[in-house]
Order: sequence, then structure tokens, then C-alpha cells
Amino acid sequence: MSSTKPRRLTPKGEQTRQRIVVAAAQLMFDRGVAATTVEDVRDAARVSNSQVYHYFTDKNALIRAVIAYQSDTIVGAQEPMFARLDTVDGFRAWRDFLVAHQRQMHCRGGCPLGSLGSELAEVNPIARADVATAFRRWESGVRSGLRSMAEAGRLDPAVDPDKLATATLAALQGALLLTQLQRDTAPLEATLDTMIDHIASRTRPAPDGAPVS
Amino acid sequence: MSSTKPRRLTPKGEQTRQRIVVAAAQLMFDRGVAATTVEDVRDAARVSNSQVYHYFTDKNALIRAVIAYQSDTIVGAQEPMFARLDTVDGFRAWRDFLVAHQRQMHCRGGCPLGSLGSELAEVNPIARADVATAFRRWESGVRSGLRSMAEAGRLDPAVDPDKLATATLAALQGALLLTQLQRDTAPLEATLDTMIDHIASRTRPAPDGAPVS
Repeated sequence: MSSTKPRRLTPKGEQTRQRIVVAAAQLMFDRGVAATTVEDVRDAARVSNSQVYHYFTDKNALIRAVIAYQSDTIVGAQEPMFARLDTVDGFRAWRDFLVAHQRQMHCRGGCPLGSLGSELAEVNPIARADVATAFRRWESGVRSGLRSMAEAGRLDPAVDPDKLATATLAALQGALLLTQLQRDTAPLEATLDTMIDHIASRTRPAPDGAPVS
Repeated sequence: MSSTKPRRLTPKGEQTRQRIVVAAAQLMFDRGVAATTVEDVRDAARVSNSQVYHYFTDKNALIRAVIAYQSDTIVGAQEPMFARLDTVDGFRAWRDFLVAHQRQMHCRGGCPLGSLGSELAEVNPIARADVATAFRRWESGVRSGLRSMAEAGRLDPAVDPDKLATATLAALQGALLLTQLQRDTAPLEATLDTMIDHIASRTRPAPDGAPVS
């Protein structure tokens, strides 16, 4: 990401850059990338043209920074819960967090990363690759708990924990879209409950002598 | 939808209108709604300005017609398979069809309805409601087979077929997005296989004397 983030910034420079990224992320979340101009971002961040172009060579650089910011924000907020995804209770706590967040948002906006990916995939190959990378990071958070369960002998050996992690993230993404479209958390709840029921039905007590996860 | 489709059109008028809708759907699929102007659609459909405005009062009317067209096309293509979603084999045939379609598309474009929904949900409330309706139609195709299984006693009574249908459609949508971002059908395959494994694990032979579905 060297093209979007200069190596050394003063604390004040870092702060200004961050203000620009946060303003851009909010505008792109509210109205989409295509409808957000560099001038809109400049005004929303209360900076000058030359300040924006000091940190970002063009709109594409700004888009990459927004994807990185959303990846850090979204995956970062879930990290404490990822650490507990080696138990069904941990999955239920994660589910409750995700549903509560959508309620707080009044089901508006969907997933910021999913929306960026959907809008940019066919028109901006670099952004597509960046969003794919962000989803791999998210997926690895879900996967590590499932792998721990498998290693401890607490997951049906017929189940591939990596494929289950992919399916869980996919189900979450689609459910966030349906929840956004219907302005109702019911699809999110039904989908995550179904995935968790499936995971629960594939778990078993740790066998004697198995490594403790 | 009376605002988007005049009641009576001559066959030639219907043909012209359809040519405009198909051109608009293709442009919006390729580059998004925001980047598609009425003039782009006019040129792609090889019609005049006055022809476009004869059938569509404005871009919003065109957007609604594109959503209706994608709903008919996507749900219509799956209808022969929906009729078989009362068996696990039927689900596997549907899965194979969806994966083959993504292969044929080289994993480009994702789901046209999902992309329209994601782009328009926060900026166009009427389009958001139209896409939500299209997804309900799609969901009902998945649901009817699961309800038949439940009525015939071939589904675990603890499973709500309606919630399972919602989860299956959500998982499919998210998987199509991951497949689009990664340019690889692996997420779609892993996700649908997981959902079908789950459905299979909740099915049972028809009990004696149960109604035949």
C-alpha cells in the first residue's frame, strides 16, 4: 500500500490524512464511490485541495485507503469475538454482536466492505483485489477458531474448517445485504442461526487425551 | 409497476421498449447504475431520445424496469430447478447450475440483482423496495421445496423451512460476491456445499403414511 500511504508522516500529518480517509469512507458509505468526488471529500474533511493531493495522488489512491480503513475498522471490531470462535457459545456471542450492530444502524448501509466490493469489482481491478484481500483477512478470523476446534477433535472430521469459514462469511455477507434491503434484522438472524445450528451439529465433546484448544 | 410500463403497447412498441431495457440492464451490469446515463442507454439501444422518454419518464423509471427485467430473468432461469428443491438431489442440481453459470461468466459481474440492490439501497428507496421484492420472489422459489419436504415429514421438525430458505438465499448472495471478488468459483462451491450438507443432515425418509410431496 506504499502508493496510498507515505512512509513517514508527522503526527499532525497522520491526523490530517486520517481525517480525509474517515470523511471519504463516510461519503462513500452514504452515497457510493461513483457519487463521491475528491472535492466532496475535501469539503467534508475541511482541508484544502493541496492537502488532499499531498496525501493521495488521485481518487483511486483515496479509494484504496478507504478499503484499508474499512478493513481495519470492521475486522478490528470483531477481533475480540474471533478469539472465541472455537466454541458454539463464541459463535452465538459474535452473532448477537452483529445483529445488535445492525439494529443500531437501523439496518442502513449494509456491510461497508461488501458495498465497496460490489460497486468496484467490475470497474476497478486494484480495488477489487484490495477488497478480496480484506475479505480473506475477515475469513481468517472466522477460520482460526474452527481450525482450533478441528485440531482439538471437537469438529466432525468430515467437515473442512476452511470451507466452513468461507461459507459462514458468505452467509453473513448475503444476510447483511438482505437485512439492508428489507430494513429488518430477520434475515441476518435466520441466516446466522442456521449456520450456527449447522456448526453445533458438527461439534462433539473433546475426545480423551485430545489437545486442549 | 404501472409507472414503468404503459398498459398497452403494440408488438413493435413492446419490442422497442424491451430493447431499451436490455441495453440499460447490460450497461448497469457492466459499469453500475450511477455511471450509466439515459444517453448511454439511448445509444446502446439504437433509439432516439424521444423514444426513450416515450417509454420511460426518467432514469428512475428505467431503473425500475431493469430491476423487474433482472428479477424475471434470474428467477425465471431457476424456475425449472426450484420445482426440484424438495429433494437433496434437486439442491445439488441447482448448485451445479449456479456454479456452471459463474464459470461461463468467468466469475464476472456477481449477481445482477445483488449488485443493483447494493448500489441503490441507500440512495433510491423505491429501487430498494423493488429489489427487496425481487429477492422475496427468489426466496419463495427456494422455500416451496423446503416446505414440501417439511409437510411430507422429510425435514427435521425442529427446522423452520422458511428460515432455512432465507439462509440459503443469503448464503448464495454472499458467495456470489466472494466469487466475483476472487474471480474463483471456490467460495460459491464451498458455501452451497455447506448449505446442502446442512439440509441433507436435517432430512429423513418419509414416515409411513405421510403425504407424498
